[in-house]
Amino acid sequence: MSLTVVGATHDGEAVTVRVEDGAIVSMGGDVEPLPGDEVVDGTDTAIVPGLVNGHTHAAMTLMRGFADDLPLKEWLEDRIWPIEGRLDEDDVYWGTRLACAEMLRTGTVRFWDMYWHVHAIARAVGDAGIRATVATPLIDRFGDDVGESLKSEALGFLDAVADDPLVTGALGPHAIYTASERMLRWTAEISAQRDVPVHIHLSESEQEVADCLDEHGVRPTEYLDRVGLLTPRTLLAHCIFCNDDELALIAERGSTIVTNPSSNLKLAMGGGLVFPYVAARGHGVSVGLGTDGAASNNALDLLAEVKLFALIQKHAAADPAAVPAHEAWEVVTGRLAGLLGGRGRVAVGQPADFLLVRTDALELTPGDLVANLVYAASGSVVDTTVVAGEVRMRHRHIPGEPDIRREALARARALGTAGDQDLR
Amino acid sequence: MSLTVVGATHDGEAVTVRVEDGAIVSMGGDVEPLPGDEVVDGTDTAIVPGLVNGHTHAAMTLMRGFADDLPLKEWLEDRIWPIEGRLDEDDVYWGTRLACAEMLRTGTVRFWDMYWHVHAIARAVGDAGIRATVATPLIDRFGDDVGESLKSEALGFLDAVADDPLVTGALGPHAIYTASERMLRWTAEISAQRDVPVHIHLSESEQEVADCLDEHGVRPTEYLDRVGLLTPRTLLAHCIFCNDDELALIAERGSTIVTNPSSNLKLAMGGGLVFPYVAARGHGVSVGLGTDGAASNNALDLLAEVKLFALIQKHAAADPAAVPAHEAWEVVTGRLAGLLGGRGRVAVGQPADFLLVRTDALELTPGDLVANLVYAASGSVVDTTVVAGEVRMRHRHIPGEPDIRREALARARALGTAGDQDLR
Repeated sequence: MSLTVVGATHDGEAVTVRVEDGAIVSMGGDVEPLPGDEVVDGTDTAIVPGLVNGHTHAAMTLMRGFADDLPLKEWLEDRIWPIEGRLDEDDVYWGTRLACAEMLRTGTVRFWDMYWHVHAIARAVGDAGIRATVATPLIDRFGDDVGESLKSEALGFLDAVADDPLVTGALGPHAIYTASERMLRWTAEISAQRDVPVHIHLSESEQEVADCLDEHGVRPTEYLDRVGLLTPRTLLAHCIFCNDDELALIAERGSTIVTNPSSNLKLAMGGGLVFPYVAARGHGVSVGLGTDGAASNNALDLLAEVKLFALIQKHAAADPAAVPAHEAWEVVTGRLAGLLGGRGRVAVGQPADFLLVRTDALELTPGDLVANLVYAASGSVVDTTVVAGEVRMRHRHIPGEPDIRREALARARALGTAGDQDLR
Repeated sequence: MSLTVVGATHDGEAVTVRVEDGAIVSMGGDVEPLPGDEVVDGTDTAIVPGLVNGHTHAAMTLMRGFADDLPLKEWLEDRIWPIEGRLDEDDVYWGTRLACAEMLRTGTVRFWDMYWHVHAIARAVGDAGIRATVATPLIDRFGDDVGESLKSEALGFLDAVADDPLVTGALGPHAIYTASERMLRWTAEISAQRDVPVHIHLSESEQEVADCLDEHGVRPTEYLDRVGLLTPRTLLAHCIFCNDDELALIAERGSTIVTNPSSNLKLAMGGGLVFPYVAARGHGVSVGLGTDGAASNNALDLLAEVKLFALIQKHAAADPAAVPAHEAWEVVTGRLAGLLGGRGRVAVGQPADFLLVRTDALELTPGDLVANLVYAASGSVVDTTVVAGEVRMRHRHIPGEPDIRREALARARALGTAGDQDLR
C-alpha cells in the first residue's frame, strides 16, 4: 500500500509526502507520486501530526447528553451504572465505532481507552482503523469473584491483541478505591512481567485523597508507589489533587499524567482547583490531554479540548503567558508524554499518522497556524485523517459513517439513553 | 420575499416553516410552500433560534493569533494599539466581513460591536446581512480633541443608521478609565435623549476597581450609576469583579451584563475569579454571552463559547448542577437578556432569525438536542442561517466567502498580523 499527498503545506512550505507500509518514505518540494499510488489532493491544507486522546471511555458515546448537570454520585450511581450493567458486546462495539468516527473526524489518530467488553472495543478499533491502547477494567471492591473473572479477561485480552497492528493491550485498575491492594499489586506484577501499560484514575476527587489518607496513611500517589504501580508504564488520569511532593514523585518514577479539563469542570470535581499543570511541568512530569468519556464532556474533539486546557491553565496560574500555544500543541499531539505514543513529527521515517487541516477555514484566517489550531479551531477544520498510512477520513468523508450513526442511535434508543431530539 | 423551510424538525416534530417579509407567518406539519417561495430543504436538521453575540470587536479578526500568550499590558499597548493606529476604513470593512462570515457560519444572527470606523462596520454588516448593534468608541483620556471628534462621529453615526433595517446605533464609552466623567455624563444624556443603547467595558480587571476606589471613592458600578449610565439601555461587558452590592444595583437598574469567558481566561483577567454568574442570576440580572474580539478568544463561535461558559461556571460554583444546559441555551440565544434583542423563539409572528442544525452530526448523536448543542457541538453543526427572513448561509455555503477570506488575509498581510501559515 502506498499513498501520496500532493499540494499540502508543511511549516509554510509546499510539500509532497509519500507513504509506504505505514511510514513516511519521502517528503519535499520535488517528490512525485509513483505509479499505483493512492493520491490525496492536499490543496488549501496543511499537513500536521495526528492528535492523541490520552483518556476516554469510548463507548460512553451511547450515554452522551443522557444525564447532564447532576452531582457526581447521582450521575454515576443512579444513572450511568444501571445503564452500564445492561450494555452488551454489540452495544460497546457500536458505541466505540461512533466514538472512533467522531475522533477520526476531529483529528485523533490514537486513544487510550478503559471500558467493559474489551474484545468488542478491539474489534471496533480494528474496523475503524484507528490506534488504541485498550485497558481491561479491573475492579474487585464489589466482590472477589468479579475481580477474578476480570483478571482472566485481562490476561486473555493481552494474549488476543499481542500481535494486533493497531491495538495495544493494557491493564485498567479503575481506581485505588475500586481495586483492592491485592488487585493493584497483581496489576503491577503483570505489567512488569509482560511490559504492558497500566491505565488508572488517580486523585480525581478530594474524597479519594481523604479516604486514602484514612485507610492507608498516605496520599494516593504514595499509595500507588507503595503497591508498585508508579512506573514509566503507568498512565494516571486526572490528578487534580496531587500536591507538590506527589508531582515530584511522579516525575521521578516516569509515569504520565493525562488531564481532562472538560470532564473535570463539567462534573465540578476540583472544588475550584484544576490539575496543577504548571507545577507538574516544573517537575518534568510527562503530560497528555484527554476528553474522558462522552457522558462527561460531551464531545471527543481534542481541538476544542486543547483550547479549554490552555485557557483554564492560564486562568489558574493567573498568567496569560502560561501554556503558550506551541506548548499546548505539544500536549495535544502527545509529544510531551512519550507513553501516549504520539509520534509527533511529520518527517521521513516516522509513522504516517497525520492530518490535513483546511487552511482556508475562516477561523484559521489570518494568524499563526498552531495558535489558530489551539485557540480558534474546532475539529471541523480537519479535512483528511491518515492513520498508519491508511486514509481513514478523506475530505470529511468516512466510509460507512451514516450506518455507524444509525446503529449507535438504535442501541441508545434500546438502552433508553437517546434523548429528546430522537423523537423526530 | 418569501421563504419556506421544509423537512426540518422543531421540538422533535416535523414542521414546515413559511416566512414572509422577515417574519414567520406559518409553521406546522400541514404547511406547504406557496408558488414563488424560495425553498430550503431541512432534511436531517432541526430548526432552532439564532444565537446572539453580546460583546465583540468584529474587525479584530485581522489580529487573530497575532500576539497570543502575552500579559495584558504588553499585548494591548505594545502589540494591538500600534496596529489599530494604522487601521483604515477598508481594513475595518474587511475584518468585519470576515467576522460576519465566521459568525453566520457558526449560528450567530446578531452581535454587539464596539470598534473604530463605525461607518465601515455598518457597511460590512449590511453587506453580510447580519444584525448588529454598533457602538462608536468614546475615549477622551488621551486628549479632549479626540473626545470631541468621537462625539461628533457618534452623533453622525446615530443619524446615519437611524432607519437601517439591520444596524442599531449605540454609544461606546470604552471604559471608566478611558472615558472622562464628562464624557460618561454626555453619553448618559444622549442615550436618554435618543433612546439608544450604551456599550461599555466594566470591572474587567482588579486594577480598574482599585483605581476607581482611589479616584472616585466608590466601586465601578456605583460610579457608573453616579454618572447616570446604569440604565436598562446599558450593556456592561465582563463584570468579573462586581461584588454582591454591585450586582444588586445592576439588577435594580435593569442593565445587562455580557460575560466573555474565553477572553477572560485567555488574558487571565480574573486572578482566579470568573464573572459571578450564579450570584448575578440570584439577583435577577439580565445576562448574555459574548466572544470578545478574535484577538483575545480567538474564535467567534458561540457554540464553543457556551460550553466554556457553562463549564467554568460549574467549576467556579463547585456544583455540576449549576447552569444546566437549558439555562446556558437561554443565555446564548439572548433570551436571558432582553437588551440583546434575542427574539429567542421559532414561532409564528416572530422575526425569522433562525438556524438549521444538522441532527445527523456525530457529536449530536445520541442525546437531548439542547444538551448536545451546549456541551458537544461546535458551530460546524450549523447547516443554514436565516437572518431577517433572508438565507445568509445555505447548506454551509456563504456567497462570496472565498473573496472575503482573501481580502481580509491581504489586509492582515499588509498590516503585518498575518502569521506563519500564510507563508505558504
